[in-house]
Amino acid sequence: MRVLVLGGDGFLGWPTVLHLAAAGFEVGIFDSLARRDLDRELGTSSLVPIESLMNRIDAWHDAHDEWLHLYRGDTTRAGDLERALVQFGPDAVIHLAEQRSAPYSMLGSRQAAYTQRVNVIGTLNLIHAVHAVNPNIHVIKLGSLGEYGTPNLDIEEGWLDVTHKGRTDRVLYPKRPGSWYHLSKVHDSHNLEFACRAWNLRVTDLNQGVVYGVDTDQTQRHPDLATRFDYDAIFGTALNRFAVQAALGVELSVYGDGSQIRGFINLRDAVRCLELACLNPAEPGEFRVFNQLTQSISILDVAEAVASRVPGATVAHFVSDRVEEMGHHYRVTHTGLEALGLEPHYLTNEVIDGILATARRHLDRVNQAVIYPRLGGWHRD
Amino acid sequence: MRVLVLGGDGFLGWPTVLHLAAAGFEVGIFDSLARRDLDRELGTSSLVPIESLMNRIDAWHDAHDEWLHLYRGDTTRAGDLERALVQFGPDAVIHLAEQRSAPYSMLGSRQAAYTQRVNVIGTLNLIHAVHAVNPNIHVIKLGSLGEYGTPNLDIEEGWLDVTHKGRTDRVLYPKRPGSWYHLSKVHDSHNLEFACRAWNLRVTDLNQGVVYGVDTDQTQRHPDLATRFDYDAIFGTALNRFAVQAALGVELSVYGDGSQIRGFINLRDAVRCLELACLNPAEPGEFRVFNQLTQSISILDVAEAVASRVPGATVAHFVSDRVEEMGHHYRVTHTGLEALGLEPHYLTNEVIDGILATARRHLDRVNQAVIYPRLGGWHRD
Repeated sequence: MRVLVLGGDGFLGWPTVLHLAAAGFEVGIFDSLARRDLDRELGTSSLVPIESLMNRIDAWHDAHDEWLHLYRGDTTRAGDLERALVQFGPDAVIHLAEQRSAPYSMLGSRQAAYTQRVNVIGTLNLIHAVHAVNPNIHVIKLGSLGEYGTPNLDIEEGWLDVTHKGRTDRVLYPKRPGSWYHLSKVHDSHNLEFACRAWNLRVTDLNQGVVYGVDTDQTQRHPDLATRFDYDAIFGTALNRFAVQAALGVELSVYGDGSQIRGFINLRDAVRCLELACLNPAEPGEFRVFNQLTQSISILDVAEAVASRVPGATVAHFVSDRVEEMGHHYRVTHTGLEALGLEPHYLTNEVIDGILATARRHLDRVNQAVIYPRLGGWHRD
Repeated sequence: MRVLVLGGDGFLGWPTVLHLAAAGFEVGIFDSLARRDLDRELGTSSLVPIESLMNRIDAWHDAHDEWLHLYRGDTTRAGDLERALVQFGPDAVIHLAEQRSAPYSMLGSRQAAYTQRVNVIGTLNLIHAVHAVNPNIHVIKLGSLGEYGTPNLDIEEGWLDVTHKGRTDRVLYPKRPGSWYHLSKVHDSHNLEFACRAWNLRVTDLNQGVVYGVDTDQTQRHPDLATRFDYDAIFGTALNRFAVQAALGVELSVYGDGSQIRGFINLRDAVRCLELACLNPAEPGEFRVFNQLTQSISILDVAEAVASRVPGATVAHFVSDRVEEMGHHYRVTHTGLEALGLEPHYLTNEVIDGILATARRHLDRVNQAVIYPRLGGWHRD
């Protein structure tokens, strides 16, 4: 099976590429390297040193005598995608090539427009390229659990059965997220669902929770195979970011009071979910949605779990106009991927200690200036 | 009251500008003239001759000794919008500056991306400009009734009360439309609703049906004040397009079997709805949705109503991969605008005869090559 990974140079993309290659898939990487450009714009960088994409591919070849296929391209240029699909001829495309930071999308007008343009137009171009080149290609799209927001209803996997004035229909699960980034993925989901109806595309939309962890079996094999580890206020997500802060001996930055509950998933499970989606394609015309998480935990509980592993670690609260409801109902259905064979790695003290150990190994690389939010109206509570 | 009309040079925009000016509003026009560019791209033009925007403004000044304020600008350039808001200082902005043709958005990858980029990024820029310049400005956004698609549920005004597993919430009405154009407006609605929550903006989202008619009291005053009359397969909407076809003595082109039901509204009522929205602003933080139609009629019934006024007129059916369900449930709530004072002008034989008379006056201007769909996979059934 041939799988093209859009965004194959990114935090999740690179381990996905290696996981699939190790599992025997023929893997192609499509990437514009836009994420590395954002590091330059923001003065951020991965805590763990990462190699250039060319060196990464060389390192995999050195270890496994196997070349990963590389397509330098940009999803916002329709021709780049078409060319890659024609040349590589994938059975499945995993689309991870989106601007993935909610805080970045909230920095201002330019960043909001960049996020929605790259994400929405990129996905729209992918839909058209698949339709034009080979509608049988299974499109696996990374969404976000944050798309749903925090309704006062249980969150189902993409669809909801509704009865209204005595009539019944199965509708797309209504979404009210809290950032321009999350909204861009809501837009993607609507576009993809239409592509299934209009053109019989096969689509799996994965609404992923917060990914934690930095290693997989493959990234651990050689330092040149490491994936990025973001700890800054813009790209560093909860848990990974808390681990660096705890290792540094500075305050763990919780946004709001921390009572907001989020879904979490181990990086090892995230790459396995993408493999399972490849192995079990959606039917032609099917818009299939899975919620890709293994546990729901409050942000404060996550911060305290990390803090409890480091003597003297403390938690601080930051607030802004980013809209997150606190103390809300949160019960998320996530049975689809487990039915396909996912065996979750849950969050344990051992996992936290592993992330802390990675953080401590590279503390000399920390840029203190990027740890706390400085733009977009954030301030310490 | 000062009202800035984005897209004030368009089919609905220009009559809205004149209607508001005649009603005593101070009116500004913001327009990129993109619609006129699309005419050049597609080889189409208005059946009724229309003046350049400058001549239109002159003509209104000659008749009323009153200048309309003009801002040449593009919504996809954030600075253009900010500058216009600062300089004109509106109390309300009516946003009609979107690519408005579903068939155009389905012509191919480039047109789909153009439509979603202009519409989604344009609205996103407007949100940011209002947030930055004056969050108290009432944003009145033209959506489409087609955003809802044809669910097997009554269509409410933007929101739906849902009970699921014993819990209840008021959610955004779930939408599954049938074109990239309609999807762009679904995306706009989600973005606008977030802006109300995040930044306390005041927003009225108007989900408008198919507009028919070509005249208002103001456009009738002088030929230089006429608005456009589109009859081509891309921009000509049902009823207006049927009238030209009937006047020409060619087949009326119904897409599908015609059993699809659509909401309709007279142009005179459409401009009045926009005035009513201005006069009754949404509250700060309120995302208010009205369904802007006065009647629901099947496309076939509309075609036959027009055909019945012209001896020998016949109806033909065209099909494509544009997704429209036939023979579906359709009951749309539209009480909000009537509660504000709308007194509908319903579709009558007199109204149809008026449109036919306008069509007949300009039959020498018809370009036969653009009457029927030629691109996007359409064919006569």
